[in-house]
Amino acid sequence: MQLGLIGLGKMGGNMRDRLREAGHEVVGFDRNPDLSDAASLEELVGKLQAPRAIWVMVPAGVTEATIDALGALLGEGDIVIDGGNSRFSDDGPRAEKLAESGIGYIDAGVSGGVWGKQNGYALMVGGSDADVARLMPIFESLKPAGEFGFVHAGPVGAGHYAKMVHNGIEYGLMHAYAEGFELLEKSELVQNVPGVFRSWREGTVVRSWLLDLMDNALTADPHLDELKGYAEDTGEGRWTVEEAIRLAVPMHVIAASLFARFASRQDDSPAMKAIAALRNQFGGHAVTKS
Amino acid sequence: MQLGLIGLGKMGGNMRDRLREAGHEVVGFDRNPDLSDAASLEELVGKLQAPRAIWVMVPAGVTEATIDALGALLGEGDIVIDGGNSRFSDDGPRAEKLAESGIGYIDAGVSGGVWGKQNGYALMVGGSDADVARLMPIFESLKPAGEFGFVHAGPVGAGHYAKMVHNGIEYGLMHAYAEGFELLEKSELVQNVPGVFRSWREGTVVRSWLLDLMDNALTADPHLDELKGYAEDTGEGRWTVEEAIRLAVPMHVIAASLFARFASRQDDSPAMKAIAALRNQFGGHAVTKS
Amino acid sequence: MQLGLIGLGKMGGNMRDRLREAGHEVVGFDRNPDLSDAASLEELVGKLQAPRAIWVMVPAGVTEATIDALGALLGEGDIVIDGGNSRFSDDGPRAEKLAESGIGYIDAGVSGGVWGKQNGYALMVGGSDADVARLMPIFESLKPAGEFGFVHAGPVGAGHYAKMVHNGIEYGLMHAYAEGFELLEKSELVQNVPGVFRSWREGTVVRSWLLDLMDNALTADPHLDELKGYAEDTGEGRWTVEEAIRLAVPMHVIAASLFARFASRQDDSPAMKAIAALRNQFGGHAVTKS
Amino acid sequence: MQLGLIGLGKMGGNMRDRLREAGHEVVGFDRNPDLSDAASLEELVGKLQAPRAIWVMVPAGVTEATIDALGALLGEGDIVIDGGNSRFSDDGPRAEKLAESGIGYIDAGVSGGVWGKQNGYALMVGGSDADVARLMPIFESLKPAGEFGFVHAGPVGAGHYAKMVHNGIEYGLMHAYAEGFELLEKSELVQNVPGVFRSWREGTVVRSWLLDLMDNALTADPHLDELKGYAEDTGEGRWTVEEAIRLAVPMHVIAASLFARFASRQDDSPAMKAIAALRNQFGGHAVTKS
Repeated sequence: MQLGLIGLGKMGGNMRDRLREAGHEVVGFDRNPDLSDAASLEELVGKLQAPRAIWVMVPAGVTEATIDALGALLGEGDIVIDGGNSRFSDDGPRAEKLAESGIGYIDAGVSGGVWGKQNGYALMVGGSDADVARLMPIFESLKPAGEFGFVHAGPVGAGHYAKMVHNGIEYGLMHAYAEGFELLEKSELVQNVPGVFRSWREGTVVRSWLLDLMDNALTADPHLDELKGYAEDTGEGRWTVEEAIRLAVPMHVIAASLFARFASRQDDSPAMKAIAALRNQFGGHAVTKS
Repeated sequence: MQLGLIGLGKMGGNMRDRLREAGHEVVGFDRNPDLSDAASLEELVGKLQAPRAIWVMVPAGVTEATIDALGALLGEGDIVIDGGNSRFSDDGPRAEKLAESGIGYIDAGVSGGVWGKQNGYALMVGGSDADVARLMPIFESLKPAGEFGFVHAGPVGAGHYAKMVHNGIEYGLMHAYAEGFELLEKSELVQNVPGVFRSWREGTVVRSWLLDLMDNALTADPHLDELKGYAEDTGEGRWTVEEAIRLAVPMHVIAASLFARFASRQDDSPAMKAIAALRNQFGGHAVTKS
Repeated sequence: MQLGLIGLGKMGGNMRDRLREAGHEVVGFDRNPDLSDAASLEELVGKLQAPRAIWVMVPAGVTEATIDALGALLGEGDIVIDGGNSRFSDDGPRAEKLAESGIGYIDAGVSGGVWGKQNGYALMVGGSDADVARLMPIFESLKPAGEFGFVHAGPVGAGHYAKMVHNGIEYGLMHAYAEGFELLEKSELVQNVPGVFRSWREGTVVRSWLLDLMDNALTADPHLDELKGYAEDTGEGRWTVEEAIRLAVPMHVIAASLFARFASRQDDSPAMKAIAALRNQFGGHAVTKS
Repeated sequence: MQLGLIGLGKMGGNMRDRLREAGHEVVGFDRNPDLSDAASLEELVGKLQAPRAIWVMVPAGVTEATIDALGALLGEGDIVIDGGNSRFSDDGPRAEKLAESGIGYIDAGVSGGVWGKQNGYALMVGGSDADVARLMPIFESLKPAGEFGFVHAGPVGAGHYAKMVHNGIEYGLMHAYAEGFELLEKSELVQNVPGVFRSWREGTVVRSWLLDLMDNALTADPHLDELKGYAEDTGEGRWTVEEAIRLAVPMHVIAASLFARFASRQDDSPAMKAIAALRNQFGGHAVTKS
């Protein structure tokens, strides 16, 4: 089928390739004219037959403006799909606004990164049954072969919600391996930490794709000497914990993983300064002056 | 090669089968005469040619006594392998005691459960190079086919240590999925929680064997209505956190997973009674009387 | 000085008493005519000489509407003080709206509960220097005697912010005592848990007002048998963790205290159902059916 | 009454002074002859009339040897009191060994630090009723005036146990204030963080002795610029969490406080290196090279 695709960076560009290989007609737009199939959003819309479907794959910071612009150009029966990393709570208001012009809206959480072009992108989508059904040929071509990798999770917002939780779980999984790595590194007994991780890739309870990546990393750099223990966090991790707070879900593990990332970016910890100050006050404990 | 195998329960029995299929001569002993190839430990030892190798696969509670008994029956050049769930700190003293009689000792952490017989058991072993080399034909037959599933982690104790950390990581991984499950269940947007987990099996960062199991469980019982939120814990989880404390490793995630299991077994929480009492004292907050 | 006071419940009523004892003229308004000094907001405003100061002490759910109503009745030079449990982020927008009519705004976090009438209320206020200076006679009379119990924390919002953090810290303090209580209760050695808490009231590092309350509670009910381990949470605890997420502050302790309250209100834990399901899947572990 | 006192450092020396002021006869021994009243342990024992009571107040590392030496010098009816920071689990075996010679044993957790000499030491003691009764004149003089500051917590071991839990709670309390401090420091609204802490000293739920110390520290150094966020931990914090693990007590808060101290002493976090490695592997996320 025909699809408009806005944002042809690493992710969007690969998706265009994968869709074209599957026989779809993709008209892409990007601010970079070398990548773009249209000179403007207007031209993009003009090149598509109504009812149109336009997939937005742009950085979170410009998604809102892009969809607003599309809202002014599209009309009854068209559909906008947001495949970016939007907060799920932005989806409902957007959908309502577009609906005033008869435009449909689907939110699509997309996973797959650099491997997606070849292996397919896992898709978690939210939207009406009718809208999702119309886009199924696109979803089918983007998703991995086989029975997994796609879910219609619920109404508008449910796709980004599922992706958010996916990323929250990812934080916890990564940190579980990370704590195990640190303990093994400190152990006086275990002398072959990369070998231990490598061995776990078959026959164990902890085998996973992340474990495979851990093996890759340790094969290249057995003690991870070349890396600093520093990690950014993305919106999804924070939103997951915010949702846990809103819905009264105890979330010790994912929250701790998030807090550990915060701590990794601090040169010095104000909280621990306070601990040092208190210890100094009550016990005359030796204090390390900064 | 020839191997003595003590403990022919579900795990030991399957291991005997797998080893025999691979062409090894296994002489088994079990307290249950229907399963046993020998009437006594003495007879077991008598049936094996020196230098002997005897694998102990018995419940943790009787491992020490079994190995002590073996120590009295075996001699110079024999090897004992403990494949049970011993605490790594028990291995060194055992090995020293056996060494006084010239008996070697290998500790083997074994993973694989009910699937091991067919797919192979992941093995993490600790011991001297010479002892491990002698047992390699057995390890090769027990482990999964392919390049993974076996590691010689270090000297005596390192095998159980690696298995302990494996289980600690397992706690954290499971709890990350569990928190994600709870949040999705509470969400007003996501209407197809089993479908979300199922979709994650391909193309995502969180795909893993545990996720496959989660899919199986949710396919059978979409809201897990038939289960109580109750979980035992095994020694390895506790030992992992104890080691973190000994080695000053921050272990928020695995510890939180362990504490959550503790809490799951409480009818009422004494700590939360204290919170209720304090709230009652300072604010006249409504208190739910038990 | 003259003060209008809206909301004459337990808290507001006691504050009126304390202010009148200090010689201030308080005109109170409450929906309950038995408590009220004015028949309506309009009458209240009419009874006060300009420039007026009106303290709003109503439940969080009606604060916004009350202040909106006041905004329509007041004018240039008047001041509204919100002494309720508003989220700090509501203060700025309110202040801006009132400023359009020349009305000032102060947010006041108030602590003290049932003891406040006699001992004074701790006040954390946010607002302009001029506005705060004008209200100082009221603050001086409400606060405890002595050098503590009052702070001008910063501009509008800072008062509620400081109160929010106060409550977040309170969550953590309470839970630290609560965990200690549970451990002592489970100990085979300590036979006099109430006596231990009682003894700590002098000469220790952990002495505090909350400890005094813990002693009171344990004196009345040594094992807290009469209480259920159940605790509500108020907005401030959640907001504190939300702010930690926004500002990238690692907040393991206060978040864990909040999560424990969430868990205390669950009949069964969906997360632990997931753990039970996984254990069942991979190990044939005994599962407690619900 | 007469008391032998071994260890005349800052703590022991002050206790000797306080006991002498109360009219007791204290014979002290210290390795430093300038402080000591006896040239040797033998001479110390010789200077005391049977039945003797000897208080041991030495660093944890030499407590065992000191008590062993005393065991050889004392006899039927004598009592040894260990006032040091021993692990409670050492008390039972010690008491049993001493009991073979008819020597009694009391374990005393002591709190009070540098303020103890003037204000009294909080005492948590474990031992038989008869032994504790005999030492009550000493306890009465050491403890603070008033009704608090002393508890006979249970049999041998209970005193150190209660002190251990006291210190565990202390970790949690300190960290709650510390997290609050960090959040206030990061807030754009609160401009007077020391003033906020100072104000909390009266009329609030969070008032405590630790809060007073926090005020002192912030008065001297408003942003704690002179301190590094670094904190040692003592045995009691670790033992508390170990006991929680043994007794299946969920202990999120105190454990998190302990882990935060571990993290404060790391130049770089191996766990966060693993997170960085995984992020690098799966997403080509920018990684900060060390």
